[in-house]
Amino acid sequence: MSPLKLIRQRNLPNFKKKKAGSAPGTVAHIGRKVLENMSINILDYDHEKITIEEIDKVIECKPFAASKAVTWVEVMGLHETDKLKTLWDDFGFHPLIQEDIVNTLQRPKIEDYGEQIFIVMKMLRIKDGEIQEEQVSLVLSSDYVFSFQETDEPFLDPIKTRLQVENSRIRKSGTDYLAYALMDAIIDYYFETLEEIGNKITEIEDEIFEKTKDSHLKEIHNLRRELINFRRSVWPLRDGINSLLRDESPLIEAETKLFIRDTFDHLFQVIEMIDNSREMLSGLYDMYMTDISNRMNEVMKVLTIIATIFIPLTFIAGIYGMNFANMPELNWKYGYPTVWVIMISLTFVMIIYFKRKKWL
Amino acid sequence: MSPLKLIRQRNLPNFKKKKAGSAPGTVAHIGRKVLENMSINILDYDHEKITIEEIDKVIECKPFAASKAVTWVEVMGLHETDKLKTLWDDFGFHPLIQEDIVNTLQRPKIEDYGEQIFIVMKMLRIKDGEIQEEQVSLVLSSDYVFSFQETDEPFLDPIKTRLQVENSRIRKSGTDYLAYALMDAIIDYYFETLEEIGNKITEIEDEIFEKTKDSHLKEIHNLRRELINFRRSVWPLRDGINSLLRDESPLIEAETKLFIRDTFDHLFQVIEMIDNSREMLSGLYDMYMTDISNRMNEVMKVLTIIATIFIPLTFIAGIYGMNFANMPELNWKYGYPTVWVIMISLTFVMIIYFKRKKWL
Amino acid sequence: MSPLKLIRQRNLPNFKKKKAGSAPGTVAHIGRKVLENMSINILDYDHEKITIEEIDKVIECKPFAASKAVTWVEVMGLHETDKLKTLWDDFGFHPLIQEDIVNTLQRPKIEDYGEQIFIVMKMLRIKDGEIQEEQVSLVLSSDYVFSFQETDEPFLDPIKTRLQVENSRIRKSGTDYLAYALMDAIIDYYFETLEEIGNKITEIEDEIFEKTKDSHLKEIHNLRRELINFRRSVWPLRDGINSLLRDESPLIEAETKLFIRDTFDHLFQVIEMIDNSREMLSGLYDMYMTDISNRMNEVMKVLTIIATIFIPLTFIAGIYGMNFANMPELNWKYGYPTVWVIMISLTFVMIIYFKRKKWL
Amino acid sequence: MSPLKLIRQRNLPNFKKKKAGSAPGTVAHIGRKVLENMSINILDYDHEKITIEEIDKVIECKPFAASKAVTWVEVMGLHETDKLKTLWDDFGFHPLIQEDIVNTLQRPKIEDYGEQIFIVMKMLRIKDGEIQEEQVSLVLSSDYVFSFQETDEPFLDPIKTRLQVENSRIRKSGTDYLAYALMDAIIDYYFETLEEIGNKITEIEDEIFEKTKDSHLKEIHNLRRELINFRRSVWPLRDGINSLLRDESPLIEAETKLFIRDTFDHLFQVIEMIDNSREMLSGLYDMYMTDISNRMNEVMKVLTIIATIFIPLTFIAGIYGMNFANMPELNWKYGYPTVWVIMISLTFVMIIYFKRKKWL
Amino acid sequence: MSPLKLIRQRNLPNFKKKKAGSAPGTVAHIGRKVLENMSINILDYDHEKITIEEIDKVIECKPFAASKAVTWVEVMGLHETDKLKTLWDDFGFHPLIQEDIVNTLQRPKIEDYGEQIFIVMKMLRIKDGEIQEEQVSLVLSSDYVFSFQETDEPFLDPIKTRLQVENSRIRKSGTDYLAYALMDAIIDYYFETLEEIGNKITEIEDEIFEKTKDSHLKEIHNLRRELINFRRSVWPLRDGINSLLRDESPLIEAETKLFIRDTFDHLFQVIEMIDNSREMLSGLYDMYMTDISNRMNEVMKVLTIIATIFIPLTFIAGIYGMNFANMPELNWKYGYPTVWVIMISLTFVMIIYFKRKKWL
Repeated sequence: MSPLKLIRQRNLPNFKKKKAGSAPGTVAHIGRKVLENMSINILDYDHEKITIEEIDKVIECKPFAASKAVTWVEVMGLHETDKLKTLWDDFGFHPLIQEDIVNTLQRPKIEDYGEQIFIVMKMLRIKDGEIQEEQVSLVLSSDYVFSFQETDEPFLDPIKTRLQVENSRIRKSGTDYLAYALMDAIIDYYFETLEEIGNKITEIEDEIFEKTKDSHLKEIHNLRRELINFRRSVWPLRDGINSLLRDESPLIEAETKLFIRDTFDHLFQVIEMIDNSREMLSGLYDMYMTDISNRMNEVMKVLTIIATIFIPLTFIAGIYGMNFANMPELNWKYGYPTVWVIMISLTFVMIIYFKRKKWL
Repeated sequence: MSPLKLIRQRNLPNFKKKKAGSAPGTVAHIGRKVLENMSINILDYDHEKITIEEIDKVIECKPFAASKAVTWVEVMGLHETDKLKTLWDDFGFHPLIQEDIVNTLQRPKIEDYGEQIFIVMKMLRIKDGEIQEEQVSLVLSSDYVFSFQETDEPFLDPIKTRLQVENSRIRKSGTDYLAYALMDAIIDYYFETLEEIGNKITEIEDEIFEKTKDSHLKEIHNLRRELINFRRSVWPLRDGINSLLRDESPLIEAETKLFIRDTFDHLFQVIEMIDNSREMLSGLYDMYMTDISNRMNEVMKVLTIIATIFIPLTFIAGIYGMNFANMPELNWKYGYPTVWVIMISLTFVMIIYFKRKKWL
Repeated sequence: MSPLKLIRQRNLPNFKKKKAGSAPGTVAHIGRKVLENMSINILDYDHEKITIEEIDKVIECKPFAASKAVTWVEVMGLHETDKLKTLWDDFGFHPLIQEDIVNTLQRPKIEDYGEQIFIVMKMLRIKDGEIQEEQVSLVLSSDYVFSFQETDEPFLDPIKTRLQVENSRIRKSGTDYLAYALMDAIIDYYFETLEEIGNKITEIEDEIFEKTKDSHLKEIHNLRRELINFRRSVWPLRDGINSLLRDESPLIEAETKLFIRDTFDHLFQVIEMIDNSREMLSGLYDMYMTDISNRMNEVMKVLTIIATIFIPLTFIAGIYGMNFANMPELNWKYGYPTVWVIMISLTFVMIIYFKRKKWL
Repeated sequence: MSPLKLIRQRNLPNFKKKKAGSAPGTVAHIGRKVLENMSINILDYDHEKITIEEIDKVIECKPFAASKAVTWVEVMGLHETDKLKTLWDDFGFHPLIQEDIVNTLQRPKIEDYGEQIFIVMKMLRIKDGEIQEEQVSLVLSSDYVFSFQETDEPFLDPIKTRLQVENSRIRKSGTDYLAYALMDAIIDYYFETLEEIGNKITEIEDEIFEKTKDSHLKEIHNLRRELINFRRSVWPLRDGINSLLRDESPLIEAETKLFIRDTFDHLFQVIEMIDNSREMLSGLYDMYMTDISNRMNEVMKVLTIIATIFIPLTFIAGIYGMNFANMPELNWKYGYPTVWVIMISLTFVMIIYFKRKKWL
Repeated sequence: MSPLKLIRQRNLPNFKKKKAGSAPGTVAHIGRKVLENMSINILDYDHEKITIEEIDKVIECKPFAASKAVTWVEVMGLHETDKLKTLWDDFGFHPLIQEDIVNTLQRPKIEDYGEQIFIVMKMLRIKDGEIQEEQVSLVLSSDYVFSFQETDEPFLDPIKTRLQVENSRIRKSGTDYLAYALMDAIIDYYFETLEEIGNKITEIEDEIFEKTKDSHLKEIHNLRRELINFRRSVWPLRDGINSLLRDESPLIEAETKLFIRDTFDHLFQVIEMIDNSREMLSGLYDMYMTDISNRMNEVMKVLTIIATIFIPLTFIAGIYGMNFANMPELNWKYGYPTVWVIMISLTFVMIIYFKRKKWL
């Protein structure tokens, strides 16, 4: 995983923001262009039958939504704003909803527009060792659920599979349960991503306990940034889901609220896992810094031991290297061996001293 | 205690999480497999008599629950999901309850499903010097209390003992009091575990005050992680118990609420003890870092003292080791002793200087 | 960008504050004098027609406000307090509003005075590589919106452009929508400014990963101060906008509240971006400090390697530089080469030792 | 003060906690045994007369409580649980109250049991230079106030003195005022203890500004722990007193609430003083660490100055100590003095360099 | 400014606190004695006329208060508690008010006693380069406002000046407006004091960017303490003013509440300025610490460069200082110059190496 690269790409201003002062409701795509063509899938079902169809023209989805069955319109690709605008105007989306769907830098949120509930979430998945962020918007009314995503990644396919099981709860329930199922699926991916991050942290920890490397610092720094970003993509949903539970929207049935409460719980678990990971990273950083200090200590000890032993010895040798005419020791028979004895004794004294200090 | 090992085992992804997008209410065991066979104990009692029985087939517990007496069904082992599913469907457990009981990575929580109250807690006990974490779920209705645990550890036995005392409060009370007694017993174990951790902290503190070792850093780091994990296993209960006290569930009597309030208080005490332990660990880490700095200082002082004393002396010896033809000092009668006097004086000056600086 | 300079200029006491104990409602300009002359623009519009006029005398704006059309009075320059006072008394501004408009050190706020709503915001734009702060006040009544700004910078021009589009929402709406549009425009500029700051942070990060320089510390320090200041200029609006949404002011229509809610969301996004930037700076500071420690380590290693290799060698050389009469080695035929062999072997041993320690 | 010792004694597990899973309401003394015999004082008073008596048998206090006068039963020593149990059953104490009075590890709290209000506080006093912690419980009903303390320390005597003043407010008021007076007296001791701690902090600060010692670190560490513990003994009362003020207990009169509000204020002042002391300790720790760094810097400077001056000089001396046959300088008449001149010049250059760097 | 000295004097226990357990309402002066004699000024005014008088006897102020006009009784000096007690009993002050006025260690607060509102604030002014703290209490009833201050500093004189302006709002309003004006005047002084502190911080910052001195650490430490103290003197007012705004006291008119809301806003601005200053100090401390590390780095580099260059050279010189009989190099004709060449080359290599490492 090279998180730095993608943070750059995601976080920063190769994304053009909306022009300051432009009218709200301006439908202009903001973000990366990732898909050449938009594609639209329709899933129209009740507890008896299900129709799955890919349509070409936007207008074709109108009859499905008008049917009594639950209709899920899955839109992939957000670049063809003209087509999208036609679609939305047909279905009477509020201008602010329109603006927010194509602005892929949106903060996650859940907003109640009376006839419609608008949900913005972030899909966060590890792909090719990198966290891919993608905005997923849901628009929920009593007849249909629209889902909008930037790419054509099939991450919502598990829901499609469940929809094909006859007599399953999802087939027997309404649009609110479908919306819940989609939200829950996205949150489930958060767990997978967080586990990958957790693995990475344990890996670094194991390595640091063995031998700190300079690269660890960068990895810790990058993971930290990843988690800051992750938290930002998840935290705001808290308020939104909470208000879904609290407010009396006619679009959400009481029974479904039990499930949404469960999702709320999952969300909290995700936030807790993020916070725990951040605390662990913080602990790792402390370990790293301590290790640096410890290594410095060791370096200094080696220097000090060598210098402390040899500098006095060199001094003694220097004494008897002097050229004074009158140095009686130089002519003593045992002068030279005596100096050796002194030197060796001194060395032993030093070594004992260092042993005492536990430097050796 | 080797906390690192168990954190690894517990925290990380040898645990398979639920597949993203799978239907809620899917009964699939998630976590470690720790028991080969499931065992079920029935305790059926009122203030007059008590029946304790181990049953083989799931179906056998039905008549007990139907009786007017309070029934406690103690289930140990969560692997045989088929058997469990039969049991649950018989008793009409909500699909979300079913899913959560076998998902042993559940966040602690207390949820009111109308006819039933569902409680998830974490058992945390020190065994063989390691913290053992285990999920305990309670399902409370007006007629019965189900308890589900992963292992066959008899940690709920003190409650069984109390149940055998005739005319005790627990025998005279209903299911709500039993559920309270079980929750309180689990929280009591938290205190024991925290005391063990507290002992470990004091031990490290004593050792650090005497002589810091490198291993202390790892121990501090690991205890820190333990406590992060501990807090996560306890903190969410706060909200749950609070809502039990606040909400008007017909399953909880007013008199029992007094006792639950006491449990709430114990929980806060546990959280406070965790936070205090964390602050103390943080203080220990500061101590450790300071000690490293102090030792570095000491090393540097030794080096500086030796170098500062001998480098000038060696220079003087070097001077008179030069071979200039014309060095009058070399031929002076007292040249050599004079140099010694100078050297010794210089050494004394240095030593006095260091004494002044309090380096010696 | 040289943020330090402007913080000095903005934050500190070349700004005269109001004299302690002076009466509230005292209209005295506080802050920098940036414009020689005040200029007033009138935009009077309904969905059918729009009149744009620059007026000379304050009195001339009276008839526009009296008309049934929406009137926007844009005042640039706050020094001519006499003129302003005349204007305000004519329109019945509360003394506290009057005092706050000219006190450019005001905290951002939104206050409801019954007939009027008073809004104080800070314009924050990067100009010539420096953040320019300017106070913008809005006074909203059912008939008019007054905007007051310190300079004649045309940052509200995008709104004027939108006003000239016939049948646009802004032309069809009342004063509340105009006030919303002005607030939203100002908040849009925050995003631009934050992106510039984000660019700067990424730039520093890239440089630090390559090679830390001393100047980075100053830059981090200054950006940190910038962000403290930025947050202070934005955070208080939160409460104000929230109370606009919550309170039942007759001046704000229900439909407009949807838009204001969107602005509220943008504001939160701004605050989050600020907090993220601060966390990133904090991470950068850690990186910087770690780098310093690492460099110290490297310096120490070089010293230790050199000293540890050469000090013992020099000692050996010193031994055989002694002048004892009786040193048999000196006269051995292979004495000199033997010493060389010993020295070179010792050097190899050292180098292997350092390799093992990974210092080389 | 040697806070470490007493933290050990107080905080840690020579205190046996209640056995996990034991029934609530089990009356078992938990904590240190500090008094051999229990003693009971009765103060029975109304505005006209006061009776003070020490009684031997528990049963003797019954008639006093039955009288119309206010009765304060002061119980010292909590070991004779049998006697206490008799007493409590007579007065109809709730089992949970009974359990909590003898559990001296209780968290401070105020609980309303309808007929009785139960208050647990911690007495914190400096005695023989150490903080003595002791649990004080109050049980307030409409007829009596019971106070329970672990030791026979007369710290509630000031209240007794006030009770003997005829026509004083306390004599004219009911049990609620007496309970207030006792609580307020205990909180007053907190101030004294905090002032002692404050003195200690200032003392350390003065010493650190003069000359840091290693012992300071331990003292800071210990005071920090003391304050963590202090806060824990005070903070929970906040909620309790607040609910006394808010709830409509018939035991507390409106007039007394004014006084309790004052106590609430004192409590906040205590918490603030604790927090300020902690911030100051944190500042002292920073000072200590900075001082260590500064001293290291100084040590390094001395080493560097000596080494930088003498190593080059020694090199020069080494040059002319070489034994090459052909070294013309050695035979120059002024060779030796020239070398001295070079050496002295070099030394001056170095000294000027260090002066410039402000190392000297 | 030498903040340390005054913190000592203010913060610490040369102030005698109230004796633990003494009765509430005990009128005993607590704090420094700063004025020999108490002086009392009366300002009695309505919109038509104003009487200003200094009175000698406490009793003389009675008739003024009885008049229908607004009466401001300004009391300076709090030592003559007997006189004060007479005064207060005359005006029916609650015992708790009496106790708090003379306890100059009071926490700021605003309390509603029905007929009277009691306000405690702290005056914080820089005088002779030091922050002077003084307690100011206000007692507001429908007929009069009492102000009590410790010294005879004329800091409330601006209000007197405004009172002499006929037809000013203050003259036309009641006691509530007067109390507001006094509070606002005191808060205005906070701004001045904070600006002085801000100047000091900028000054230190400029100096640190140029050249860190040891004294900076003390200054930062002291300013930090000053701000902790400042915050404590301001923060509690928040709640008080808020409850004034929220509660329906008959003493405060609706119109005045608008002004008090403004004061509330100022208070928040003060708190924000304090917090910003603290963050800046924290940044400065980081700068200081970084600078110390950087200087250490530089010292180490100098040492390493010198040692690394000269130690190998000295070794070479040592080689040819050996006295082996058989050292062919010594007798080579170009031996000596060759050694010089080698040495100089080595030096160049080293210098290039250091240049590469950017140490030079």
